Amino acid sequence: MSRPPRRLLLGAGPSPIPEPVRLAAAQATVGHLDPWFQDFMESLKQRLRQTFVTRNRMTFPFSAPASAAMESALFALADEGDEIAVIIHGAFGARLAEMARRQGLVVHRLDVPWGSPPDPQQLEDLLTSKPDIRLVAFVHAETSTGVAADAATLARIAEAHDCLVLMDAVTSLGGSPVLPDQWGIDFTYSGSQKCLSAPPGLAPVTVSERALEWMNRRRRSCRSWFGDMLEMARYWDGQNGRSYHHTAPINALYALDAALRLFLTEGHEAAHARHYRAHLALLAGLEALGLELLPPPGCRLPQLNAVVVPAGIDEAQLRADLLSRHGIEISAGLGSLAGRILRIGLMGDGARLSHVLTLLVGLEDALARQGWTVTTGSAPQAAIAAHDRARTAEHSSRAAGADG
Amino acid sequence: MSRPPRRLLLGAGPSPIPEPVRLAAAQATVGHLDPWFQDFMESLKQRLRQTFVTRNRMTFPFSAPASAAMESALFALADEGDEIAVIIHGAFGARLAEMARRQGLVVHRLDVPWGSPPDPQQLEDLLTSKPDIRLVAFVHAETSTGVAADAATLARIAEAHDCLVLMDAVTSLGGSPVLPDQWGIDFTYSGSQKCLSAPPGLAPVTVSERALEWMNRRRRSCRSWFGDMLEMARYWDGQNGRSYHHTAPINALYALDAALRLFLTEGHEAAHARHYRAHLALLAGLEALGLELLPPPGCRLPQLNAVVVPAGIDEAQLRADLLSRHGIEISAGLGSLAGRILRIGLMGDGARLSHVLTLLVGLEDALARQGWTVTTGSAPQAAIAAHDRARTAEHSSRAAGADG
Repeated sequence: MSRPPRRLLLGAGPSPIPEPVRLAAAQATVGHLDPWFQDFMESLKQRLRQTFVTRNRMTFPFSAPASAAMESALFALADEGDEIAVIIHGAFGARLAEMARRQGLVVHRLDVPWGSPPDPQQLEDLLTSKPDIRLVAFVHAETSTGVAADAATLARIAEAHDCLVLMDAVTSLGGSPVLPDQWGIDFTYSGSQKCLSAPPGLAPVTVSERALEWMNRRRRSCRSWFGDMLEMARYWDGQNGRSYHHTAPINALYALDAALRLFLTEGHEAAHARHYRAHLALLAGLEALGLELLPPPGCRLPQLNAVVVPAGIDEAQLRADLLSRHGIEISAGLGSLAGRILRIGLMGDGARLSHVLTLLVGLEDALARQGWTVTTGSAPQAAIAAHDRARTAEHSSRAAGADG
Repeated sequence: MSRPPRRLLLGAGPSPIPEPVRLAAAQATVGHLDPWFQDFMESLKQRLRQTFVTRNRMTFPFSAPASAAMESALFALADEGDEIAVIIHGAFGARLAEMARRQGLVVHRLDVPWGSPPDPQQLEDLLTSKPDIRLVAFVHAETSTGVAADAATLARIAEAHDCLVLMDAVTSLGGSPVLPDQWGIDFTYSGSQKCLSAPPGLAPVTVSERALEWMNRRRRSCRSWFGDMLEMARYWDGQNGRSYHHTAPINALYALDAALRLFLTEGHEAAHARHYRAHLALLAGLEALGLELLPPPGCRLPQLNAVVVPAGIDEAQLRADLLSRHGIEISAGLGSLAGRILRIGLMGDGARLSHVLTLLVGLEDALARQGWTVTTGSAPQAAIAAHDRARTAEHSSRAAGADG
């Protein structure tokens, strides 16, 4: 087997992993019950709390991919027969509903056209008409459509109806604000491999006290041993001495810790602004190419750009050309959007003007090969100009802030 | 946070990870749907098949720790209300039973005194008296007691009663023979961090065609989405084109692949012999120190040595001294054996005479500090002599084989 090829990862994830983060994974392995490692666990949890801007004691890196965390969150928050509202505005909302169905929950689907944001009024109506619903689940940043949900409003409605709130923040955390405490989210999970730019395989999780209280009160034990957050807490929470639960993925945790350090050193605001600038640059470049995004303005994720495939373009060929001729990965559409959109991720270390320019040059080439009319160089130029405008606007807004 | 300290990992896992394996994890991340990565997946699966000595098509690295694989195996093999026999000869058998209980299976416990091997006749009697049992689960190498089960015999009995067989090979794979095809095991899972000496976090899994047939026939969908091996197969099995399931832990898989290469280059027989020699060396050293193993001869695992804590010795202090004065990790007992045994792992790269000698010197020091009578140097000497005898015996047996 040859060494892995160099790729510019601008798809739906994993995102580009900075070398110091990858090298952190190569550090010497220690035992997971070693006193040094227990201190490391504490500092890692603290960094995760800072990343999630939360005071939740139960904040830890779940030792499996985000899809497993999604499933465990449902096992952790509901018993068979419990009623749950699942907002479905893309493939990951649909996955939440499918997992809930398998677990024997009574699922109330709130289907939203893929590419549009959830309508909070629909949630209000659903919860009013179905007062037995006690859990609301939704995807904050739909990786399949590039749409952001209005998490604060959805959570406020759920809370007013006395529901627990489960939020998928896989693609949002690190790229745009994720504020579980401020919004009132009871269980938030994310992924290591998106806007945090750590290797794939881990899922940062934060759980509210309210959710833990429910778990402590539940009638029967959690059907999933690995998803039982009370068991998990005895391993990750050192307050009363740690007890063995499973063997933590030690080297992967080194890398996650290194990635969180980079994120926190840059700062939430700066990282989010960088994602937004890169998005504006990409958008300007795409417009110069005559391409458009699927979601309407106002709900677009900076970190995940769903581009409508224009008539006459073979999107599979386009992706293949980008990969083979330029070493750039972008992603196909999922489910009902397969063949209809391309997904460009500007996540974590990928959210940089230089990467946007590399991609736009590659897109010009790949589109021209399919006979698309391209004015060579115009897309990167438009991107640079948009990026400059975004920088200027940031400076003005900071200056205005300083004046105020 | 400081860098991780250097430790000699001779506990219950993780085992020492060779530097090339750790460095493999630091290679450039590629997308999990990249053509290169799909080729990598195929070669990794092939290496796992060689490691498991199996022709099972469904052989893959489960993207989570072995405890999660254990739970998923149960979700995959049984529906609520199904009857299962769980052989419990230690903490991990007890964990299997607890997971089965949570999943709503009807659990028939076959309790064995911890430190003794399962008695096949008891399984025969149980299956004869309870003909509705359709799944038998057991731990091949009980990490909590250092006891090996007679997997071939147990599986033969289970098969004669038309039961599927689930085997935990977490601590056995790589350290002693694991032969799912020859023995007739339907679902075998292991862990990356024991005798394969890869970083913790992944669980090699192999599933028989018979088990897959049952999954295809089952009445209701698997309650766990992540544990649904038919869904998982669509991601890991490229026969009809791969479909997205979750994002594989790419960098961790690089490391697992590197570890499997080392194992396969050494060869099963040589690796198992190395574990056995190291065990004999340790055993001789322990005897020179006046210490003894918990399990009787004949069922002792070479890779996990459960040492009885002698009266008058504070085992926690002993472990603390080994760690702080010598940088050596060994493990405490679990559950009812806590405080009563120490667990010394000679797993993977840890199974070397040099490590045994380092440990014995450390043990002499730590025991002497507690007033234990030690003839300094006698334990390492005894270990060297035993190791030499084992080498000689191997050569004689190979020579005899060549003559025959």
